[in-house]
Amino acid sequence: MKKINVAVAGLGRIGKIHLKNLCRNFPELEVVAVMDVLDESKAIADEFNIPNFTKDFDELLASPGLDVVVICSPTDTHADYVVKAAKAGKQIFCEKPLDLSLERVVEVLEIVKESGAKLMLGFNRRFDPEFKKIKQLVLNDAIGDPQIIKITSRDPGPPPVSYIKVSGGMFLDMTIHDFDMARYISGKQVKEVFAKGAVMVDPEIRKAGDIDTAIITLTFEDNTMAVIDNCRKAVYGYDQRLEVFGSKGMAQAENNFPNNHKLYTESGVSGDLPLHFFLERYDASYNQEMREFIDALVSGSEMPVNGNDGLLSIAIGLAAKKSLEENRPVKIDEILN
Amino acid sequence: MKKINVAVAGLGRIGKIHLKNLCRNFPELEVVAVMDVLDESKAIADEFNIPNFTKDFDELLASPGLDVVVICSPTDTHADYVVKAAKAGKQIFCEKPLDLSLERVVEVLEIVKESGAKLMLGFNRRFDPEFKKIKQLVLNDAIGDPQIIKITSRDPGPPPVSYIKVSGGMFLDMTIHDFDMARYISGKQVKEVFAKGAVMVDPEIRKAGDIDTAIITLTFEDNTMAVIDNCRKAVYGYDQRLEVFGSKGMAQAENNFPNNHKLYTESGVSGDLPLHFFLERYDASYNQEMREFIDALVSGSEMPVNGNDGLLSIAIGLAAKKSLEENRPVKIDEILN
Amino acid sequence: MKKINVAVAGLGRIGKIHLKNLCRNFPELEVVAVMDVLDESKAIADEFNIPNFTKDFDELLASPGLDVVVICSPTDTHADYVVKAAKAGKQIFCEKPLDLSLERVVEVLEIVKESGAKLMLGFNRRFDPEFKKIKQLVLNDAIGDPQIIKITSRDPGPPPVSYIKVSGGMFLDMTIHDFDMARYISGKQVKEVFAKGAVMVDPEIRKAGDIDTAIITLTFEDNTMAVIDNCRKAVYGYDQRLEVFGSKGMAQAENNFPNNHKLYTESGVSGDLPLHFFLERYDASYNQEMREFIDALVSGSEMPVNGNDGLLSIAIGLAAKKSLEENRPVKIDEILN
Amino acid sequence: MKKINVAVAGLGRIGKIHLKNLCRNFPELEVVAVMDVLDESKAIADEFNIPNFTKDFDELLASPGLDVVVICSPTDTHADYVVKAAKAGKQIFCEKPLDLSLERVVEVLEIVKESGAKLMLGFNRRFDPEFKKIKQLVLNDAIGDPQIIKITSRDPGPPPVSYIKVSGGMFLDMTIHDFDMARYISGKQVKEVFAKGAVMVDPEIRKAGDIDTAIITLTFEDNTMAVIDNCRKAVYGYDQRLEVFGSKGMAQAENNFPNNHKLYTESGVSGDLPLHFFLERYDASYNQEMREFIDALVSGSEMPVNGNDGLLSIAIGLAAKKSLEENRPVKIDEILN
Repeated sequence: MKKINVAVAGLGRIGKIHLKNLCRNFPELEVVAVMDVLDESKAIADEFNIPNFTKDFDELLASPGLDVVVICSPTDTHADYVVKAAKAGKQIFCEKPLDLSLERVVEVLEIVKESGAKLMLGFNRRFDPEFKKIKQLVLNDAIGDPQIIKITSRDPGPPPVSYIKVSGGMFLDMTIHDFDMARYISGKQVKEVFAKGAVMVDPEIRKAGDIDTAIITLTFEDNTMAVIDNCRKAVYGYDQRLEVFGSKGMAQAENNFPNNHKLYTESGVSGDLPLHFFLERYDASYNQEMREFIDALVSGSEMPVNGNDGLLSIAIGLAAKKSLEENRPVKIDEILN
Repeated sequence: MKKINVAVAGLGRIGKIHLKNLCRNFPELEVVAVMDVLDESKAIADEFNIPNFTKDFDELLASPGLDVVVICSPTDTHADYVVKAAKAGKQIFCEKPLDLSLERVVEVLEIVKESGAKLMLGFNRRFDPEFKKIKQLVLNDAIGDPQIIKITSRDPGPPPVSYIKVSGGMFLDMTIHDFDMARYISGKQVKEVFAKGAVMVDPEIRKAGDIDTAIITLTFEDNTMAVIDNCRKAVYGYDQRLEVFGSKGMAQAENNFPNNHKLYTESGVSGDLPLHFFLERYDASYNQEMREFIDALVSGSEMPVNGNDGLLSIAIGLAAKKSLEENRPVKIDEILN
Repeated sequence: MKKINVAVAGLGRIGKIHLKNLCRNFPELEVVAVMDVLDESKAIADEFNIPNFTKDFDELLASPGLDVVVICSPTDTHADYVVKAAKAGKQIFCEKPLDLSLERVVEVLEIVKESGAKLMLGFNRRFDPEFKKIKQLVLNDAIGDPQIIKITSRDPGPPPVSYIKVSGGMFLDMTIHDFDMARYISGKQVKEVFAKGAVMVDPEIRKAGDIDTAIITLTFEDNTMAVIDNCRKAVYGYDQRLEVFGSKGMAQAENNFPNNHKLYTESGVSGDLPLHFFLERYDASYNQEMREFIDALVSGSEMPVNGNDGLLSIAIGLAAKKSLEENRPVKIDEILN
Repeated sequence: MKKINVAVAGLGRIGKIHLKNLCRNFPELEVVAVMDVLDESKAIADEFNIPNFTKDFDELLASPGLDVVVICSPTDTHADYVVKAAKAGKQIFCEKPLDLSLERVVEVLEIVKESGAKLMLGFNRRFDPEFKKIKQLVLNDAIGDPQIIKITSRDPGPPPVSYIKVSGGMFLDMTIHDFDMARYISGKQVKEVFAKGAVMVDPEIRKAGDIDTAIITLTFEDNTMAVIDNCRKAVYGYDQRLEVFGSKGMAQAENNFPNNHKLYTESGVSGDLPLHFFLERYDASYNQEMREFIDALVSGSEMPVNGNDGLLSIAIGLAAKKSLEENRPVKIDEILN
């Protein structure tokens, strides 16, 4: 059987994860080329025996026989690369978000639609075993009708302020995963957002025009609710939890730990901290995400996360920003129309 | 040593708990009289060998040598009874809330102040071992500066609609405990409230003008935040949890269970549901609450929960009601001024 | 209704617990007299308003209208007091063990039987909510046929060596509770015992002819097995756990904790130590034990723990001693015949 | 850098795991040949692009430039293959046990020693993250001097009776892992073994001359103790736990689960069963085991599990068999001399 030819653009942290998974766990694929703007990334290509390394996206796209492009480059290149790949007739996996401008996202999705290319967005947490289990319990009606969804999402530490300045703000950079998770679990559309936020971690973040701590309340079209709490810095590490309360019960997904040991000493009972950060915690999810992308490509079925999912998460993020600025609940329709 | 003479007004569920504790666990006290409007409550007086039973509060108050009145009668009698007890020079323990009208509460507290009587409000959850432990961790700076407080408070089932109609609404009847808990843990003043609510349990509750499910965000004067989620019906029982996230760590108080067993069978790992409702879960807290009330009386130290605590929880509740009605964040100052 | 008149002999730690429970939680009883060899115990009698205090057991037994004697005095008085009480026609609750000599136990049980007195032995752990739950799961066939019973029983610290010298040794003093628990859970007779032991806590214990750490394997008549591990000193406190493995599943009873909090900090996740010692851990069991004793008396039904239960636990203890000394499995029949 | 050339003998369940790990996670290696007695195993070779497949071990050993042989064939071939590989000057990884006959093991180790070949035995559980953590806590003196080691090891179901007949019995086939774990954690030599066993799972196992349920007590040279409980069938799945109790505390390693979810419904709180069996539970350990084998080869340091470890676990297993047959504690010296 002919192998699927894949190219990877961007070899940062996420790019390397995808590259490693594609090379090791997908015998049906061949990674034919990789691209990164840094010269030193050539070493990564060599490590994985990738025959072609380039610093230029167009050259990457021109790889002979190329079927699929996996885009892991910085956010501000996503829209352009997706457009180019779509126009070149490639299938596309793109890391979130598509773009920080809603107008641009709409435009890009229009082009992708016209091109007939398949596009999947990298909301990897949907593929985490913990959260998938909760979704499955919801689908199996084990919880009944969801009434309250609670998401805790805290990072072990903030990114550099230089990054924060171009990130689009915490809601579009960090909470966007939680917005997608709320939509994924609920299966309903969000109609209103109320956000409270503060700077508690680092005053430099305030100077950069952002916040680092927030509570966001989402109201779905059927009046069910979700609440997200975020902080850029949890000293005890990465805190990723989900709770769904419904008419028939409640399901909780706990943090994951490097091991389950308990130590009893004179001073108390203790155990290890959660897995440190997203690379450790979501390791399995990245592989599963790629698995479901490839399977959907091969079977021709619908993408598990599509362009519209990307668009709506951005819209919720923009509503949250507006809500924070104006200290009032903001309807999604105010953003989308 | 002369015993402290106590009278108990109201022998409903809470009244009986207080009566039992006072009779069994406080050798320094003597319950000299009890009052209830129902004839059949006389049997309770007999069971505990209380010499005097009356259906009339004034008569109760006139008991010779009476020092302390414990008021557990229905909410709409609290204000009157407190005023009478204060004017009669008695020390007072009163179940929450003092009254559903903020004006009346202010008035009553003024009278109490003038009378010089000590008044403690029955926010019993402050004395629960789980929540006390969390408060202690906050005080010991184990968590650092609290940044996010999360309270889950769900009942096993709604009260009768007839009760809901006169209850003042979910925020003043049920969430008021959570408002007090947020204030207790934070130690700061609440400045703003935003509430979302819905009817998901029983449409009759909507007809009664109330809600049964809600998410409330509190903002404290220093911009730290608390979020409360409530539901009148959790099919798995009473759900009472608290989480405090701060600059040095996070502390969680879990539900309490009748036992810690785990059963492993072919179909999964299972355990018992949480303690069913407040009588079971907060059993120890009621005794400890009375202990600290009596100790404060004897030592002349400040009441652990005073009239102002009652007033502020009602103000937050009224702000939450207004927020829900007007779908906007409401400042506490809008209520208090 | 005439109250049941009770006398309590011995006001040490256990005696005080029983006295308190009898006075506070049993309105159908009246404690008419207490006895203790120490003058200062008179204060305890006063605290609970007991009209008669004596230092002499015969005088206690002569209390007018006495129905029941609760014996909590030192082990070496149990046999004599039980015999006297039986001959005086009283109903008897006696702390374990009846005596350290099997012959004497047999003799005493014979006298009790002839007298027609009811006798209950104080194996309080059977009444602990955790262990009762496991027993109930066994009875409900939730675990199927029990195949392996595992008991962990470790004390926070050893008793004084002076006590150890007269205690009958660890197996008869401490493990005897675990022998009874194994019998209670299994419902089968023990046929063989193998014990390994060592001194790891304090060399003085060796000098006193005893051990402080042990693993004991019991084989029941149907070849199912139980294993007990003991230590006189667990630095983290009282460790009381039970696991039953059977053909349909496994049930575990965990330690009990003063609260369920979890603290997440930079250095790990921690929680409180288990409840410190038997007074805290088994508080509820003592009351429930007395409840079931009184109920059995009133209803005339069988005692929940009878003299034979006491006898068999001692026999297992003696077999364990012999096994340890001779380093071989010892049949119970070697002890009983 | 020249790659290390590896050959794998035996492509059963364990062989495939090692092959997959060697091919995917060790860029410094090249698997140059594989061998299996079944024709259909050729497909496995193809799947992993292994250039040479043979059904003959000698042919495998003759692969040009071969450095290392990984032996995963049936137990009765281990000794012969190890001897051949040693004589051919290869480095050797061999699955446990080396042989069921102690004499043969001694003989083989002698030959290996003379050959100068490095030999590592596949006691993979030493490399499990849970157990490694416990070992690390012991090494860090977090637990103090270990006093009691408790190992629970239960399979989800028994192997076919045909396998049991040639397995050497439960102690040499299944418990041997636990014997090695006890030695690994303790760091001391076992001096005595006492085993009780029974058939509770399947009478056919009795007919095959074996048992399926056991409790084994090990005594170390310093009188500390370990206790192992085994069953061939736990209906709730694979049960792999470890507890170490010492002078400074206790550490526990719990089972691992596919996820950490908790579901609260009207009927109780529930969660998933443990990871089903060794392939799932010990997945990470197999990779880590190979990692440490290769690292030891490259660095020339000592093998993390050597031939003597294999020999001693077999000796303990034989002592356990003898103890069970003769119903008495058996000294290791009785076996080794």
